[in-house]
Amino acid sequence: MIFSEAERAAVYKAIHTRRDVRGEFRPEPIPEEILSRILTAAHHAPSVGFMQPWDFIVVRDPKVKQEIKEGFQVAHNEAAEQFEGEKRATYQSLKLEGITEAPLGICITCDPSRHGPVVIGRTANPEMDLYSSVCAVQNLWLAARAENLGVGWVSIIHHQALRAALGIPQEIVPIAYLCVGYVTQFHEKPELESIGWLPRVPLDALVHHDRWESPL
Amino acid sequence: MIFSEAERAAVYKAIHTRRDVRGEFRPEPIPEEILSRILTAAHHAPSVGFMQPWDFIVVRDPKVKQEIKEGFQVAHNEAAEQFEGEKRATYQSLKLEGITEAPLGICITCDPSRHGPVVIGRTANPEMDLYSSVCAVQNLWLAARAENLGVGWVSIIHHQALRAALGIPQEIVPIAYLCVGYVTQFHEKPELESIGWLPRVPLDALVHHDRWESPL
Repeated sequence: MIFSEAERAAVYKAIHTRRDVRGEFRPEPIPEEILSRILTAAHHAPSVGFMQPWDFIVVRDPKVKQEIKEGFQVAHNEAAEQFEGEKRATYQSLKLEGITEAPLGICITCDPSRHGPVVIGRTANPEMDLYSSVCAVQNLWLAARAENLGVGWVSIIHHQALRAALGIPQEIVPIAYLCVGYVTQFHEKPELESIGWLPRVPLDALVHHDRWESPL
Repeated sequence: MIFSEAERAAVYKAIHTRRDVRGEFRPEPIPEEILSRILTAAHHAPSVGFMQPWDFIVVRDPKVKQEIKEGFQVAHNEAAEQFEGEKRATYQSLKLEGITEAPLGICITCDPSRHGPVVIGRTANPEMDLYSSVCAVQNLWLAARAENLGVGWVSIIHHQALRAALGIPQEIVPIAYLCVGYVTQFHEKPELESIGWLPRVPLDALVHHDRWESPL
């Protein structure tokens, strides 16, 4: 199946207008059919040895969201301590999650022992199962963008807090807790870029030829 | 920027027709402009604290590809030993990489110390830098599909072999070595599904509600 120019442009539009959404969630529910499409997109991520190590916990219960929010708050307070001076004040002023405002939470996990101990392609690099679940996150994120849905990845929370709030067994690895919902807007640029926290690195500075130290 | 129905369908087309390509690479070179677009797509992946931890080593030199191939062969032989009986024979019969046939290799890495020791969003989960580079892999993969380019992820190779072949410094983490090129065809389904190695898990079996053990 060949891609037309218009189809290619649509894929790049999703890639380039995708944002990490924290402060712009609207409360409208997400139709089941659309939720099903973005989960199906996640489930069609590449996975090492076709192991499909992911599970999806869809969170709607406000009490569960509140527990997740408390877990965030603990890790967020710890994090603030690690920044010095002005950076700390900036850090504390940022809106970094939309856990209780987003109509849905989706936790994506990884089951390292799915389909038995030996997995094609995972023998030299056991972390490939985790990476497969990360690919599912990115598929879901881009599918959501194409559905005009915002997604925010809450990484400021300890695994134990996610396990406790969501009843995740000890042998399952939490990969991402995502806030998902319609939004008032998508920012034109990543917020940390807009506020000058860090600049976008020029692509040329990141591309090497044949070896890390490319001959000049 | 709202997505139209046609644009949404194009994004799903990329997600659902993306394949891990091993045996179908054609030798035609990839135009620079297209290479630049897929690298730009990778560079616009989400990254924790906007740290953009990735680098891209673009491999065209046949000698370098040959070294990578030898690294694969070592890890592949080790892997075969881990499968029993019939599974071993099947494993050994599979074409698992297209390192020397693909016109391009692209190694995506992660620099954990980019932009200093404290990164927003990485304080509770230090692996978020690795996960950001994985998101870059998936962006590149989908962009490549929209460019009618195939991609294969070579995970059967030790980090040390990649470091040696590509001169990657010890403090940089190799994430993925990708084979990239035009293809004779994209398979309709993942090859491991088609040959019956593993079935596609029904999505319903992977979705939980509010907690891992959803009430019946």
